[in-house]
Amino acid sequence: QGADVPKLGTCVTCHGRNGIGTSPIFPNLAGQKSLYMVQQLEAFRSGARKSEMMNVVAKPLTDAEIEALAGYYESLKPGS
Amino acid sequence: QGADVPKLGTCVTCHGRNGIGTSPIFPNLAGQKSLYMVQQLEAFRSGARKSEMMNVVAKPLTDAEIEALAGYYESLKPGS
Repeated sequence: QGADVPKLGTCVTCHGRNGIGTSPIFPNLAGQKSLYMVQQLEAFRSGARKSEMMNVVAKPLTDAEIEALAGYYESLKPGS
Repeated sequence: QGADVPKLGTCVTCHGRNGIGTSPIFPNLAGQKSLYMVQQLEAFRSGARKSEMMNVVAKPLTDAEIEALAGYYESLKPGS
């Protein structure tokens, strides 16, 4: 699942391959709105939104990678 | 649904009574992790997380109201 999605490996540790957060403070992403996720990843990348972890993770992401990752997680059935 | 949840009215306009965002940039909250939502509402309330809309909405919320709202949305079946 998602083998062709670039950099997905960095996300699954906290958000899961199925988009269910692996700890109570990591949000579920399955079925989330991709445009919202794109905006948040851009904000984490620019630092407009602060998060020790996510600012580091998002920094190297390209626009295309952000689109692909957001699209992947939106495509998952929520709560599965 | 959620009639006893304080201030829920301010949330449903954008996040829906069923926790499905009413526009592509309003995140779904149904089944989201309540601890994550509590942290985000606290960050919006303090201004640590910037959002024109959410900073205004969160400002007057008490800790108890934040807990009740986060618990309500976590209790909803995601994607329903």
